[in-house]
Amino acid sequence: MNLKDYIASIPDYPAEGVIFRDISPLMGDGAAYREATNRIVTYAREKEVEMVVGPEARGFIIGCPVAYELGIGFAPARKKGKLPRETIEVEYALEYGSAVLTIHKDAIKPGQKVLICDDLLATGGTIAATIKLVEQLGGVVVGCAFLVELDDLKGREKIKDYDILTLMNF
Amino acid sequence: MNLKDYIASIPDYPAEGVIFRDISPLMGDGAAYREATNRIVTYAREKEVEMVVGPEARGFIIGCPVAYELGIGFAPARKKGKLPRETIEVEYALEYGSAVLTIHKDAIKPGQKVLICDDLLATGGTIAATIKLVEQLGGVVVGCAFLVELDDLKGREKIKDYDILTLMNF
Repeated sequence: MNLKDYIASIPDYPAEGVIFRDISPLMGDGAAYREATNRIVTYAREKEVEMVVGPEARGFIIGCPVAYELGIGFAPARKKGKLPRETIEVEYALEYGSAVLTIHKDAIKPGQKVLICDDLLATGGTIAATIKLVEQLGGVVVGCAFLVELDDLKGREKIKDYDILTLMNF
Repeated sequence: MNLKDYIASIPDYPAEGVIFRDISPLMGDGAAYREATNRIVTYAREKEVEMVVGPEARGFIIGCPVAYELGIGFAPARKKGKLPRETIEVEYALEYGSAVLTIHKDAIKPGQKVLICDDLLATGGTIAATIKLVEQLGGVVVGCAFLVELDDLKGREKIKDYDILTLMNF
């Protein structure tokens, strides 16, 4: 199965000159979604992952079935104001301005081996912020898994100290 | 296992007098998350579900592992402006004002049996809107599954023509 057949490429979205890689056809196809998830599960087993963390909202789509299959927990990293209990937060730069990502203070136990999942590695800003949150709680990031990596944006350099799995490169 | 042990109750959130039921301890516990998911999977198998739809973002956390386990696809219902390809939309009332929910036009095939998943059945507004989207695409809503139902808010009445599974009532 070539997973790339299930990625839609949308020219000039969200801005002119940008090609948006949309994972929704992949998750909409049962066999492709299962295949992609299972590849991440195999990687997570090798890393002896104990907890999965995903940034909202597409990180949930990738990370949740991985956590389920492994029989471990999932913790969401969300934009400020979305989590109801005590959180820690990290501010990170966007192309214009900045954003704040938060996680519940009790989401990770110190020393826990954590896998971070998201649909896409682009500039790496969201993932670097998610890593900071996990480490502030004492978690150990043993890997970062993505369906798609956009090579030109060099996100890999921003998280070069971490192990990375990407299923497709564009 | 009593799943209610994994729901955090936060008084006066997001407004005074409201008790917020937070599912994050449940999804953070591998055994509880698996147990809850498996109960929904059993229900979905009885209904011969072919596609899972979940409204953003907590609907992804509930619906995605169900779709994965069944080997079927998942389609997200998202707020306006979040889906990159051609969508249809439904406007629905909130306590103050209104919101617009969208879904990709090709997310559901006509006649497909659809399960809608979300964390919580409250007033039922979001779920009623999600049902409308699925039906506009020709899908058949064979069930709606929730972790938690808030009885006082009578959301069940808003979707009384549909089959409902809730794992916990408050």
